[in-house]
Amino acid sequence: MGKYLNVLLLAIPFSIYFRFSGNELAMFFAACLAIVPLAGIMGEATENLACHSGERVGGLLNATFGNATELLITIFALRSGLFDVVKASIAGSILGNILLVLGLSILLGGIKNGEQSFDRVHISNQTSLMFLAIIALIIPAVFFQGGTQHVALEEFSLAVASILLVLYFAGLFFAMNRSHSGICEVQEARWSRSRSLLVLGVSTVMIALESEILVGGIEPVTEALGWSQFFIGIILIPIIGNAAEHFSAITMAIKNKMDLSFEIAIGSSTQIAMLVTPVLVFLSFGMGNHLTMMFNYYEIAAVSLAVVIAQFISLDGESNWLEGALLVAAYVIMAIAFFLL
Amino acid sequence: MGKYLNVLLLAIPFSIYFRFSGNELAMFFAACLAIVPLAGIMGEATENLACHSGERVGGLLNATFGNATELLITIFALRSGLFDVVKASIAGSILGNILLVLGLSILLGGIKNGEQSFDRVHISNQTSLMFLAIIALIIPAVFFQGGTQHVALEEFSLAVASILLVLYFAGLFFAMNRSHSGICEVQEARWSRSRSLLVLGVSTVMIALESEILVGGIEPVTEALGWSQFFIGIILIPIIGNAAEHFSAITMAIKNKMDLSFEIAIGSSTQIAMLVTPVLVFLSFGMGNHLTMMFNYYEIAAVSLAVVIAQFISLDGESNWLEGALLVAAYVIMAIAFFLL
Amino acid sequence: MGKYLNVLLLAIPFSIYFRFSGNELAMFFAACLAIVPLAGIMGEATENLACHSGERVGGLLNATFGNATELLITIFALRSGLFDVVKASIAGSILGNILLVLGLSILLGGIKNGEQSFDRVHISNQTSLMFLAIIALIIPAVFFQGGTQHVALEEFSLAVASILLVLYFAGLFFAMNRSHSGICEVQEARWSRSRSLLVLGVSTVMIALESEILVGGIEPVTEALGWSQFFIGIILIPIIGNAAEHFSAITMAIKNKMDLSFEIAIGSSTQIAMLVTPVLVFLSFGMGNHLTMMFNYYEIAAVSLAVVIAQFISLDGESNWLEGALLVAAYVIMAIAFFLL
Repeated sequence: MGKYLNVLLLAIPFSIYFRFSGNELAMFFAACLAIVPLAGIMGEATENLACHSGERVGGLLNATFGNATELLITIFALRSGLFDVVKASIAGSILGNILLVLGLSILLGGIKNGEQSFDRVHISNQTSLMFLAIIALIIPAVFFQGGTQHVALEEFSLAVASILLVLYFAGLFFAMNRSHSGICEVQEARWSRSRSLLVLGVSTVMIALESEILVGGIEPVTEALGWSQFFIGIILIPIIGNAAEHFSAITMAIKNKMDLSFEIAIGSSTQIAMLVTPVLVFLSFGMGNHLTMMFNYYEIAAVSLAVVIAQFISLDGESNWLEGALLVAAYVIMAIAFFLL
Repeated sequence: MGKYLNVLLLAIPFSIYFRFSGNELAMFFAACLAIVPLAGIMGEATENLACHSGERVGGLLNATFGNATELLITIFALRSGLFDVVKASIAGSILGNILLVLGLSILLGGIKNGEQSFDRVHISNQTSLMFLAIIALIIPAVFFQGGTQHVALEEFSLAVASILLVLYFAGLFFAMNRSHSGICEVQEARWSRSRSLLVLGVSTVMIALESEILVGGIEPVTEALGWSQFFIGIILIPIIGNAAEHFSAITMAIKNKMDLSFEIAIGSSTQIAMLVTPVLVFLSFGMGNHLTMMFNYYEIAAVSLAVVIAQFISLDGESNWLEGALLVAAYVIMAIAFFLL
Repeated sequence: MGKYLNVLLLAIPFSIYFRFSGNELAMFFAACLAIVPLAGIMGEATENLACHSGERVGGLLNATFGNATELLITIFALRSGLFDVVKASIAGSILGNILLVLGLSILLGGIKNGEQSFDRVHISNQTSLMFLAIIALIIPAVFFQGGTQHVALEEFSLAVASILLVLYFAGLFFAMNRSHSGICEVQEARWSRSRSLLVLGVSTVMIALESEILVGGIEPVTEALGWSQFFIGIILIPIIGNAAEHFSAITMAIKNKMDLSFEIAIGSSTQIAMLVTPVLVFLSFGMGNHLTMMFNYYEIAAVSLAVVIAQFISLDGESNWLEGALLVAAYVIMAIAFFLL
């Protein structure tokens, strides 16, 4: 599946061409398309490198580069002061993983394999961590909603970001001591160590480049098409950034490996909440742009609903295509709402 | 139990008499009483017809006529432009099924049979569908709360109604392929096919007649007794419309068939969310009265709490009378709040 | 562990001394410290007395005196008209039990014993009762939020308090008929009946005395230190009042008796919702100060989040130190928010 995506690499020269020719709309969409295969290549390089690095370092690598694409895009958005885009894409990434990635996996896996079962206790353990992480993430918005104490909110955001980061590393420590990470079981190392490093480096640079182009196109697109920055942040950017994970999770579901499918979607959500968000908060304070953890009402509502929905699905240890269809429907309904807002 | 209810058929002539004598208060309450046994008779006719029709058509019949009474009442309310009554009775029907029907079933079943158990995985599968359906139902209100974009809300309501309807038929297709509907196991066909059809036709006409009378009495009652339209919609109409289901579910619980009891309550809630509501939305646009899916804050809060409560109850696969008492208490507390609001 | 706490009894003479010397800040903190061991002694006396009294009366004693310390503090706060402190300490007690007591138990128990398991079905049954109780508790606030109908709210608070109290006694009746309370299994009666009674009497009087001193210091502390009454009520008072339970629950967790640990935390939350709160409402109406059940937005949000979090933890029947750390982190984040608000 990944192979066919590589055709989209052709969008890279177009995005650069449109940038200099000043066609900002075409530039934006070319950059969107270009990031999809690049994120997939970066993921493959990380996995290969992880296989060469032994379990501990490999686990750490995977845990750190898992959402590198989203991190790069949001860092450029942060530098441009597009705070609403940054926060929307954090919320949208969680939404996308819980509703769209998991929903499509369950839907397509269920159509292929009928009723599918997964290890309820293990997944429930994972989801309870994810839920706590996401709840910790939205607490600032819940308590400071409508408030005007901006200084208190900034202090609070830094405190919460620190706590989340400590918990993230505690979680890594926990996972490393408990289980074999099993990275290489899924996919053998096909590339040598040096090739993996090279590919990782080049793809990171290319994603950074395309992210800058993409972010530069956000404002022109909002003006030309009438889309809101919020819609671009909460729907479009997460789909692009997570495309590679979408494909892996769906592929696993079709192969009837629902446990892996759940782990990809849930692990990615946890990482957004506990690693990407705190890093963005600290970076923003470093840059002098103060990003607070004040999500807006729509983000809070959508993420809360998604969390509740995901729990209902994972409770019984079984999934079927109808549950998948309902998850996807919830995502589509929310996406339409965000578009119309 | 049903037999004794048939005494209430005597309320039919009274409701007609009071209508022409102009006693609107008496007319309203006579119509309320009359609908209770009529809904029961219609349900019986549907079940008998379903037994004669083979599983597929029978399942479809049951799935379509299950909430016909509520649908008829709300259609007349819609025609009279009583939008608040329509929306309140959608929310109230879900509330009533989850808290009152299930609560009384668990309470009385538990007093009779001690601790009762049910198939946790099966019920959890059903409830997760119900929850997704209800959540999809309230998403419009969550996202457009306080908004003023009426056109966007209308478009959005139509989109959501379409998605819900598609999912409803997907759910029917899913259920038909998976399980024997088991309609005739619960109750044998006691009536011939033609008798069933005749009874179904007559009871439908009578319910339509009484619904019109009832809806005509809503405004006089609000003026004379000081009750709000909201209270009539969210408490009174759902109790009348669901009376027959109440009796079936409670009877099953007392016979220690908790699985059936849960299925009646949960199935009815799902149907309200995924079939009745979209049909009302489409009908309203057909009539030129535009019903949106914007529920008010109280409806959202009550339905959300009910959904969470129901999940807690169904999680452990066991029920006892104390859990039933707490469900009923939650309903009573909400009903008092709606009365005082 | 309890023994070392008894050193804090030395704070009693200091609190009295500071009271008469007019040093209100020192008086407040001395009273805080003094209450901690007194609550522990009262708990021990209750348990001893319960062992001498046979199961029924013993269970009743334990169920009634379990939160006596909080009740005494809040009664004095009520008498001084500090309604916000009373309501905050009700909410804070639930929060503290669910997040801090349970969190520390799971964290320390997990560090000592690795992954711990508990009886999922039994705990789930207990938690579902607790959740229903807490939800019933917050319904008034949900429905009358922002409302101005004060008379309706007072009537409603009395109705809800009555329903909660009836359910509390129904719950006691249920528990007595179902299980051996097992009070004396945990700890043998070490004191004679008369000694237990004497200690219970003396400790109650001393707690009342120190509660009065503590409540008298609340306003001076808010002025001198800039802390809000809300913070004192929701964080400080519950920690003091529940200190004894904290120690028992954590001790049980370290001894790998997670079921008992859960029961202490969950039982205490249920009791706050269904016994302490209604008693306070009735007492306030008796005193002519009308305490309503209108919790503020922050209390509702925090308690709702805590309930959801606790459910995620208790679902899978297993706990590990990371889950405990996340619960404690959620508490710390909320405490910081309450401090900054």
